Amino acid sequence: MKARLANNEVRLIIADSDTSADMLYATQFHAPDPFVYLEFAGEKAILVSQLEIGRARRQAEVDRIFSYAELEARWLSEHVSRSAASAPNPPRRCEILSLLLRDLGVSRLIVPESFPLGAAHELEELGFTITAQPDPFFPERVVKRPDEIEKIAAVLRKTEQAMAAAIARITAAEIADARLIYDGQPLTSEGLRAFIAVRLMELGCLARNTIVAVGDQGCDPHHAGDGLLRPDTTIVIDVFPRDLVSHYYADISRTVVRGRASDAVHRMYAAVAAAQEVAYRNIRAGVDASDVHAAVAQSFLDLGFHNGTDASSPEGFFHGTGHGLGLELHEAPRLYRHHHTLQAGEVVTVEPGLYYRGNGAVRLEDLVVVADGGCRNLTTLPKILEL
Amino acid sequence: MKARLANNEVRLIIADSDTSADMLYATQFHAPDPFVYLEFAGEKAILVSQLEIGRARRQAEVDRIFSYAELEARWLSEHVSRSAASAPNPPRRCEILSLLLRDLGVSRLIVPESFPLGAAHELEELGFTITAQPDPFFPERVVKRPDEIEKIAAVLRKTEQAMAAAIARITAAEIADARLIYDGQPLTSEGLRAFIAVRLMELGCLARNTIVAVGDQGCDPHHAGDGLLRPDTTIVIDVFPRDLVSHYYADISRTVVRGRASDAVHRMYAAVAAAQEVAYRNIRAGVDASDVHAAVAQSFLDLGFHNGTDASSPEGFFHGTGHGLGLELHEAPRLYRHHHTLQAGEVVTVEPGLYYRGNGAVRLEDLVVVADGGCRNLTTLPKILEL
Repeated sequence: MKARLANNEVRLIIADSDTSADMLYATQFHAPDPFVYLEFAGEKAILVSQLEIGRARRQAEVDRIFSYAELEARWLSEHVSRSAASAPNPPRRCEILSLLLRDLGVSRLIVPESFPLGAAHELEELGFTITAQPDPFFPERVVKRPDEIEKIAAVLRKTEQAMAAAIARITAAEIADARLIYDGQPLTSEGLRAFIAVRLMELGCLARNTIVAVGDQGCDPHHAGDGLLRPDTTIVIDVFPRDLVSHYYADISRTVVRGRASDAVHRMYAAVAAAQEVAYRNIRAGVDASDVHAAVAQSFLDLGFHNGTDASSPEGFFHGTGHGLGLELHEAPRLYRHHHTLQAGEVVTVEPGLYYRGNGAVRLEDLVVVADGGCRNLTTLPKILEL
Repeated sequence: MKARLANNEVRLIIADSDTSADMLYATQFHAPDPFVYLEFAGEKAILVSQLEIGRARRQAEVDRIFSYAELEARWLSEHVSRSAASAPNPPRRCEILSLLLRDLGVSRLIVPESFPLGAAHELEELGFTITAQPDPFFPERVVKRPDEIEKIAAVLRKTEQAMAAAIARITAAEIADARLIYDGQPLTSEGLRAFIAVRLMELGCLARNTIVAVGDQGCDPHHAGDGLLRPDTTIVIDVFPRDLVSHYYADISRTVVRGRASDAVHRMYAAVAAAQEVAYRNIRAGVDASDVHAAVAQSFLDLGFHNGTDASSPEGFFHGTGHGLGLELHEAPRLYRHHHTLQAGEVVTVEPGLYYRGNGAVRLEDLVVVADGGCRNLTTLPKILEL
């Protein structure tokens, strides 16, 4: 799948493995500060600081671990006069890295598109040739192994628990003065978001930016939501936590109304649920992802749900049908306008939505695995509009 | 403080504002997906997708907001034949961005060192000149405004509450069979870490990678810790959450022993506490940060605490004295080997530590503000070794 490396070439990443999923995938070593990954002639290696080296020896799944401190000591012994009046600044990371690369006989560096420009310039000045490899850096990451799918399903189970608990709160709330009263207090977006986050933290997952958006707030799909939850109005709940041990994500959305949904909302909900079914019928290995999205978009048009014409205040169905998910919340492939042939083992969200100011927002999101003859829905939480 | 921009120049960032503190600082707009920031001739602007534009209009503190969808529609009308048999892939972001840059009469782009190499290459191919500005991209971010210091202090108060609650648990635990029993259950690193995270989540803060490291586990300073908490052994607790609303960090470490600390640990603790005092006496505006670190390191040597000689298994005091903190957990300035003249309003940790396998680890960490005649400790939590 990957191009073979010549003897003078390495694949190189400089990143932390909390934000760089490629780094975590390559090393299985979770570290919050940037370190260096090298892949050469069939071997994988990392270069880590003294803060990390003990942990790296036990946890990193690589062939070799190089000590930054040892290389730096060598650099200093070669470059710094012991009689200097005051100590100079320590050498930059790329200078230390270049020592190691020269030891390895490497002159050509293949880096991800996200590689920092500053480090690229420094390495070029040190005499290396740099090539940015178009994404994805590890094409094999797109297709999930069975153990990865299990990990994603495990996070999803926890996420469904938290979502179900949140929906139970809305269901149990009493309606009074156009508010939802639970345990004597009005329910708010902020309160329900914190409730979900605490619940997931208890389950070992980190939920950030959870959306609990009431009515037209939901029409900005990334509005986290604020203020009082209201009866007879759409409430979009979108939760996408990361497991703190496996580091895999899950993603699920539900839309509910406490009380009565308007006829317009009922129609929107039915159309969104139908659009999910259209996606499920179309998703299978060998299909172009953009054709799945086109079929979903067409299903809305067929039911009379058109997009607005004001680009600064979009309405209708104006985002993608879904996205890949794994060690990143959003990763390849997209189910949108880009051409990509779906492969068995890819895990994608299916999350059509409709947004019309005045009526509110409806989005439903499940997580599916692409298979040879179709797809398998990993999500089990029921979809119920009116509570 | 910053170089003035010529008419054909912009400062450009492409990043999300959750991981890029520069992006958040420049726009005050918190968004989990990458967007574009432009600064030109006294104006600040962003370019955002339809998913974000409504929220951006209300929240972003910029002069102009450009719609990606509008620019893309223009690009498509100029470039794509309507009679094409099948839709091509949508244009890449840099092509859309280049339309806007040409509208603005811009040819020179000044970007951060972290700017992605792939985007830099694309923009160069589109005819733009790119210069990576050495860090920091916004030098003014290093000095905190009074409202920023208040925000940091507010997160620190919450962090101290969670730390105090964790220490109270250890204090209340009974010692039985070389374990700490609380509420009938043995206390573990994992359990206490989750307790701290849940407590902080209830207070609106996100604590990741909290360290609860027992005995020699603490000698890997980034080991989060696992397994049973033990009596008569060092327990290093290091908590560094981010407030979910203000997005500022706090950072605090304490070391405790439930039961009796050995004489060696008592001496280490006294030396670390004394090293903090050395730092406080040395930190003030106008002093070189590396001199503060040198004084702290010397104070350990004066008390007979030397570093190990095995770079692959470091012992003694082998990390920096502290680091700047704000919208990033680790930001400029460092209190380490780099030269930097401290300025009033900089916020830094003071976190000396000693690590000797067999004896365990001691680290104490407070948060201080650099002032003209000295420094002000923002931290109020007492330091007590034996519980």
